[in-house]
Amino acid sequence: MSERAIQDDYPDDVSHCYGCGRLNEEGLHIPSFRDGDETVCRFRPRPYHTAVPGYVYGGLVASLIDCHATGSAAAEAGPGTRFVTANLNVDFLAPTPLDAELQARGRIEEVKGRKIVVSVTVRAGDLECARGRVVCVRMPEDLIQRPRVTGRG
Amino acid sequence: MSERAIQDDYPDDVSHCYGCGRLNEEGLHIPSFRDGDETVCRFRPRPYHTAVPGYVYGGLVASLIDCHATGSAAAEAGPGTRFVTANLNVDFLAPTPLDAELQARGRIEEVKGRKIVVSVTVRAGDLECARGRVVCVRMPEDLIQRPRVTGRG
Repeated sequence: MSERAIQDDYPDDVSHCYGCGRLNEEGLHIPSFRDGDETVCRFRPRPYHTAVPGYVYGGLVASLIDCHATGSAAAEAGPGTRFVTANLNVDFLAPTPLDAELQARGRIEEVKGRKIVVSVTVRAGDLECARGRVVCVRMPEDLIQRPRVTGRG
Repeated sequence: MSERAIQDDYPDDVSHCYGCGRLNEEGLHIPSFRDGDETVCRFRPRPYHTAVPGYVYGGLVASLIDCHATGSAAAEAGPGTRFVTANLNVDFLAPTPLDAELQARGRIEEVKGRKIVVSVTVRAGDLECARGRVVCVRMPEDLIQRPRVTGRG
């Protein structure tokens, strides 16, 4: 497994995601890594990420799958690329324990033009908690608020 | 539109959801209301709920759809009921602006046994940002950590 997170290669102006951006001070900093043909992310939910006491709320599991998938797509497309999500589909298979390290594993299912489809499983130890399929699309340039270079006089 | 949020009727021991639980001090407190045949939720993202600057990260949109759907299912099934999510499917149609009040509207699509399917649209003003379909299932009793009544000697 590589030591540098995929998200560490995101350009600064697209590194503010609450889920995975290294420049979002309030954010979750979900880190994705290459691991052979797959990608892997280890994440420990915060104590307040509750659904009902003892279990993780669905939105966090969805966020983990979403950010890990777009990260996996970026790793596939090459350093510095950035993807957004067109479709996120999550099956919740078992209640996700709150007091455990979660492991998300991603796999590239399809690459076609600007689109990359990624499947993600989320496990807590041996328990498979959720399974996702994410359609990622290369981020449109006009979504990025880059500093404009203005001419003088 | 009723003034009491659907989540206000959740029993105390299942009111800790980070997305919508009134007893989660750190949480988002997503509030859902009945509105005729539909349900409605108005929510203003926090400034740090960024995807790229100016837009909302997908995980928040997914959380909003998820919690609003399970709330809508609870409203359909009757006060005090509580649902969990079996499947969450979200189409992201347009980048969701960060500096806007989002409006999620829910509609019951199917009721079958313990299962209720809810569709949800998310708009910012006139802009439809996302559309979701959520399969909700009545919460299993064994998921709830109720205080046990123990006999004396």
